[in-house]
Amino acid sequence: MKKIYLDYAATTPVKEEVVNAMLPFFESTEKHESLISKIKDDFMSILNASTGEIIFTSSGTFSDNTLIRSLAYYQRDHGKGNQIITSTIEHPAVYKTLEKLEVEGFEVVYVPVDQSGVLEMDLFYKAISQKTALVTIMMMNNEIGTKQPIEEIGTFLKEKETLFHVDAVQALGSMKIDIDSLHLDAASFSAHKIYAPKGCGALYVKNIELLNFSHGSILEPSCEIYENIPYIVGFGKALSLSYEHFKESVSHRQVLKEKLVKGMLSLDMGIECNGLPLDESSHPGIMNFYIPQMDGDSLVINYDFNGIAISSGSACSSGALSASHVLKAIGFNDQKAKRCIRITVGDNTSMDDIAHVIAVTEEMLKGLKYVK
Amino acid sequence: MKKIYLDYAATTPVKEEVVNAMLPFFESTEKHESLISKIKDDFMSILNASTGEIIFTSSGTFSDNTLIRSLAYYQRDHGKGNQIITSTIEHPAVYKTLEKLEVEGFEVVYVPVDQSGVLEMDLFYKAISQKTALVTIMMMNNEIGTKQPIEEIGTFLKEKETLFHVDAVQALGSMKIDIDSLHLDAASFSAHKIYAPKGCGALYVKNIELLNFSHGSILEPSCEIYENIPYIVGFGKALSLSYEHFKESVSHRQVLKEKLVKGMLSLDMGIECNGLPLDESSHPGIMNFYIPQMDGDSLVINYDFNGIAISSGSACSSGALSASHVLKAIGFNDQKAKRCIRITVGDNTSMDDIAHVIAVTEEMLKGLKYVK
Repeated sequence: MKKIYLDYAATTPVKEEVVNAMLPFFESTEKHESLISKIKDDFMSILNASTGEIIFTSSGTFSDNTLIRSLAYYQRDHGKGNQIITSTIEHPAVYKTLEKLEVEGFEVVYVPVDQSGVLEMDLFYKAISQKTALVTIMMMNNEIGTKQPIEEIGTFLKEKETLFHVDAVQALGSMKIDIDSLHLDAASFSAHKIYAPKGCGALYVKNIELLNFSHGSILEPSCEIYENIPYIVGFGKALSLSYEHFKESVSHRQVLKEKLVKGMLSLDMGIECNGLPLDESSHPGIMNFYIPQMDGDSLVINYDFNGIAISSGSACSSGALSASHVLKAIGFNDQKAKRCIRITVGDNTSMDDIAHVIAVTEEMLKGLKYVK
Repeated sequence: MKKIYLDYAATTPVKEEVVNAMLPFFESTEKHESLISKIKDDFMSILNASTGEIIFTSSGTFSDNTLIRSLAYYQRDHGKGNQIITSTIEHPAVYKTLEKLEVEGFEVVYVPVDQSGVLEMDLFYKAISQKTALVTIMMMNNEIGTKQPIEEIGTFLKEKETLFHVDAVQALGSMKIDIDSLHLDAASFSAHKIYAPKGCGALYVKNIELLNFSHGSILEPSCEIYENIPYIVGFGKALSLSYEHFKESVSHRQVLKEKLVKGMLSLDMGIECNGLPLDESSHPGIMNFYIPQMDGDSLVINYDFNGIAISSGSACSSGALSASHVLKAIGFNDQKAKRCIRITVGDNTSMDDIAHVIAVTEEMLKGLKYVK
């Protein structure tokens, strides 16, 4: 039986066109500087960035780490304050970096989100002060798919000396990102969310020198820092493909998502869908379900047993089976948060796959009691 | 005209078998945990490590950074001293990390090398004290190919509380590495020196917890840190291939090296060969020539114009055209150090290539004056 893969938010299979684009570069020892430079220009153009630069890295995590540390220290060193504002639903790559910065003397304010996972903007405005050096907010959440009011934040910060970073790892390929219009100073991206391989990321930064935190080659000024040419080529190809087929990909996923959400809810088994799954602005592929009959990890195993690959929530960040901080941030207690699963559809998902998931869910939960 | 590539010490083309081994893993979204675990076991077995572990990283530089920082802090935190001993001819990935540690309060002793680039062992022994926390020495030098007395150092340190790290990036595939016999506590490796792609490294560490210096996923305990499955598979395949054909590869390169060294010297144009090129223990592929007629960067351009790719010395680490610190450490002044080139032969180099290089060199230097 062919496995049905519904965990595209974790990672995407590499597209054949992307593999084919990479292939000629493995057996080459050239540095392909003009090609890399061309790919960077393509990124700038696709993401509408008129100034600043694109730098390739080894992962989205590395991009987040580098940007947040660099921007925070740059601001502090230039007397621009010591405070960082973020949300309560960031990816570990962001919040663990911030925890480290707190130890190093920065003040971090975690602005809460509402029950749908949208930043509480009144609290955000209250938090902003003269000493706010940096705001770092995830564009689209990786667990529940909610989009943050990035336009509003960008416009508000535009005239201020506060820098604005977005973790756009989950957003890339799922919403149009316009760096100029959003007034971004920095953004993080990852290749393996858009059908290119794991092990390649990118960062955008506007005219701020980055800190090295690996010494002797990575991020060394005026040397190419990340020389994995095939993966850079693959990332470039994947981004072009993504933008060529943007509308189809988004509406394909939205249709599947709507069918799955409605199908799951109509089972009348107490299933709830977290976040704002059917909101136009949400991530087109991500759904997060509360299933009262069983805990998320058992559900993952049961779905797997039925040939369906999904996720019990966020990616592993500590190996511990603790409840998702995102679900707790939208008001779930530990018990409820542990009974949730994430399902993500992607370009290869079919209507039959969705029908199969609904049928498997019904069969699986049949006869199991739950308290409404 | 087909280009003759003679810069294998910088990077190697990826072998077709390696590409073929990687290919099935691009379109897969599995984590292949048991396969990765098997590849790690293969590394341990090939490198004869009975305890400790192999961890895959994004580069040899990342391995060096992580290991040196982790070992230094581990020792200091456990009251094992504050001093680190190294050589004057380390790779930037090592010496730039050490410079950072000096800023952070560690004392670093740089033991000189002799005119061939071999560590001055009497000075090494004098430097060792109760407060020596860590010794970090490159196994084989990347610019001149000299092998260090790793066995002697390992045996000496065996009974001591001093930890021993080697940068084995350039040695892997060019000498047999026996972690147990050498009494190594840690070692750094890179895939792209043995015909696997750039963007993958490995580290060996014996029972010491590593520091994270990227937060939120990389090197997070109990999560797989580096999830670039195709490259890990490729690195594993390349290591197996390298050991299957070890003898042939080494002697193939030694024969070519001897021919080139003798050919260059017999031109009677004042060319000298640095290090110990014809010593059995030296790197089988690396040669470093002093060519009195022209500076290294002009030579590189001239060879390139004649279809031959070589290097003017160490890899770019700052973009500056400063004289090699390795050549200065073996006694060259700035002017002499700047008139040197590195030529490296590899598995794909032929006798005809060597003859061509000698002919081109003769033609190129003909009529140019030099002072003997």
